[in-house]
Amino acid sequence: MNLEIDRDRLARELDELGAISGEPAPVVTRVVFTEADRRGRAFVKQLCADAGLQIREDAVGNTFARWDGSNARLPAVATGSHIDAIPNAGRFDGTVGVLGGLEAIRALQRAGRRPRRSIELVIFTAEEPTRFGIGCLGSRFMSGLLDAEAGRRLKDRGGVSLDDARDDAGFHGPLSTVRLPEGFYAAFIELHIEQGPRLDLGGIPLGVVTAIAAPASLRMTIEGEGGHAGAVLMPDRHDAFLAAAEIALAVEKAASGTGAVDSVGTVGVCEIFPGAVNSIPSRVRIEIDIRDIDPQRRDVLLAGVFFESGKVAKRRGVTIQSEVLNSDPPATCDPTVVAALAESCERRGLRYERMISRAYHDSLFMSRIAPAAMLFIPCRGGVSHRPDEYASPEAISQGTLVLAETLARLAE
Amino acid sequence: MNLEIDRDRLARELDELGAISGEPAPVVTRVVFTEADRRGRAFVKQLCADAGLQIREDAVGNTFARWDGSNARLPAVATGSHIDAIPNAGRFDGTVGVLGGLEAIRALQRAGRRPRRSIELVIFTAEEPTRFGIGCLGSRFMSGLLDAEAGRRLKDRGGVSLDDARDDAGFHGPLSTVRLPEGFYAAFIELHIEQGPRLDLGGIPLGVVTAIAAPASLRMTIEGEGGHAGAVLMPDRHDAFLAAAEIALAVEKAASGTGAVDSVGTVGVCEIFPGAVNSIPSRVRIEIDIRDIDPQRRDVLLAGVFFESGKVAKRRGVTIQSEVLNSDPPATCDPTVVAALAESCERRGLRYERMISRAYHDSLFMSRIAPAAMLFIPCRGGVSHRPDEYASPEAISQGTLVLAETLARLAE
Repeated sequence: MNLEIDRDRLARELDELGAISGEPAPVVTRVVFTEADRRGRAFVKQLCADAGLQIREDAVGNTFARWDGSNARLPAVATGSHIDAIPNAGRFDGTVGVLGGLEAIRALQRAGRRPRRSIELVIFTAEEPTRFGIGCLGSRFMSGLLDAEAGRRLKDRGGVSLDDARDDAGFHGPLSTVRLPEGFYAAFIELHIEQGPRLDLGGIPLGVVTAIAAPASLRMTIEGEGGHAGAVLMPDRHDAFLAAAEIALAVEKAASGTGAVDSVGTVGVCEIFPGAVNSIPSRVRIEIDIRDIDPQRRDVLLAGVFFESGKVAKRRGVTIQSEVLNSDPPATCDPTVVAALAESCERRGLRYERMISRAYHDSLFMSRIAPAAMLFIPCRGGVSHRPDEYASPEAISQGTLVLAETLARLAE
Repeated sequence: MNLEIDRDRLARELDELGAISGEPAPVVTRVVFTEADRRGRAFVKQLCADAGLQIREDAVGNTFARWDGSNARLPAVATGSHIDAIPNAGRFDGTVGVLGGLEAIRALQRAGRRPRRSIELVIFTAEEPTRFGIGCLGSRFMSGLLDAEAGRRLKDRGGVSLDDARDDAGFHGPLSTVRLPEGFYAAFIELHIEQGPRLDLGGIPLGVVTAIAAPASLRMTIEGEGGHAGAVLMPDRHDAFLAAAEIALAVEKAASGTGAVDSVGTVGVCEIFPGAVNSIPSRVRIEIDIRDIDPQRRDVLLAGVFFESGKVAKRRGVTIQSEVLNSDPPATCDPTVVAALAESCERRGLRYERMISRAYHDSLFMSRIAPAAMLFIPCRGGVSHRPDEYASPEAISQGTLVLAETLARLAE
């Protein structure tokens, strides 16, 4: 198959999408349903329309752009990722799978190939948990792992419900309609930067993902007792922030102590109430992210964190309310799709490594309803979720080429 | 002197002012120059105008309401406090000294007394450090402890300068004009709730303050390294929040370990950047409040905190930038004013205790330019900076009575 990836155009489109941000360049902040996210969606939809794709959107804003195959009644082959970005992020996380997926379709179009199955690009809503505290919102609904009722209860930190936020962004109708039946897609492939250093350090152009790690996240609300920072003596205090500090250090200790390098634990959110220099913190909310490629080890880690937080609560005279935001099983990628990706790498003479994804992706949920796998490309130093996140046009182009070839073969 | 305090009117006015808040009742949030603060100012100014007082405002919004004495050229006797409130505060901190001060003047008016010296009510701008990170802004400028140049550099967390904020609130002109000369006031008395439990627990109606504690506050900015919470392994991390957690616990340990009950240390502000559940904190800002009635012991405590934070920085591979926001000397109250307050208590047959203020007040700065003292009334359980802060109408009325009597005598 004579496939040519338009590397420069793709790099330019990634730059343009990167410039659509709630913050000045190079910082990318594109939180779901904010103005930047809406502009990003419009930009991508215009490119899809320019490529002659049929666009539809569901009730939560997942966007589908379809290139009809010669037998459009067959389940389509899908690819895609997300364009939302956490605060202070970079240009490549998610976007490489969206714009690379689109370029893969355009490359097949340019090659004059009309596939038998339709090929569909999916842009998932809110892969990042920033706004509603839960990752992969779009693919969770799509796979049925999150039901409409639970969805209606979701609120952002400002108290805005998911229903109001999506309505405001122009996505209406019942959330229950988002779910797709098993078998809707014949296959799903997500192209993504590795977000770890392995490919970059090893000089390996591609990673074929065989499994996706098992993440869990918790929200703890710690209630202590407030008061004037000058007037309440030290022995009389029940400072909620000091309890949070001890819990954060306990998370670190637990994640470092499993004996496995793959266990990680992070406290990335800590909000103090009332948050004044002269006021003892009365209430603190922290969010904890715990991951492991082994779900049992991860659950032991989680249990350890609960145990330690209970001890902290007792010792400090505070109460802790814990809420498991998500605790997802790991996903094993589909062997057929993995084999198809491996075969494409070999045909193109590109080295690849079979690997596990420690980061969290929409593929984790897509694997519930479709044979799914992921294709990783290196990012410099493994750096991600930062403005200096970087993948070279060369690396992106190679990933896009292998993706295009694999989509074409799976669509026959 | 036949003085009658209108207890019910004063309680009602305190309720009305308490309802002017950025949050629903009973929460009081009235941060300087916000809409709630402006409405609060308008409310108090109207009451002052109703009492026939002459009102003027300076360039930073300090407000003066004067009842002219028979010899208006003599230095006036002043009383007052603040109406700004930290987020999630109560109804009595500051406001008792403002509305109580006004009621003291009205009681003297009703008693038909025309004092020789003018009596002036002062409403200080931004006693609370919430917005600009530094407490007692108005009285610092007034006393010359903060100069206009340093004032021009002040910014809030949103990057709005003090100059822009005051301009927007209607307070113009050079900050250098705020300073008052020593001798401008013949005396200054601040009526305030104790913000500690001593009077309440002891059943003592009044506290005559003989000294005000020596507070210090620091801002630390910790720079670590961000990254994806799933992808960066534990040994490779330089998590800025974990460094902050260790520093907060070190502050607690240091404050608890001086051997003196009066040493207190608090981390009341902690802001994580980027603040996403799946992102390792790359930068954290904390604000630390340290107080002691002994300035030397406080400075030893401060030094200990710096030493520990240096060790944390080294061990975790993060950098810490520290900024001393303020480090004020303690104030000794003026013996003549203290004696006048004590005499009034005795004349009215009200028990009082001489005490030290561990909380921080505008009187700390007013004592630099005028003979100053404070009068405390009990607040329930010593609770302050919380919505359930409470002082009884009885307690407020007794404090106002003693204040009125003392002002009258000092104004002769």
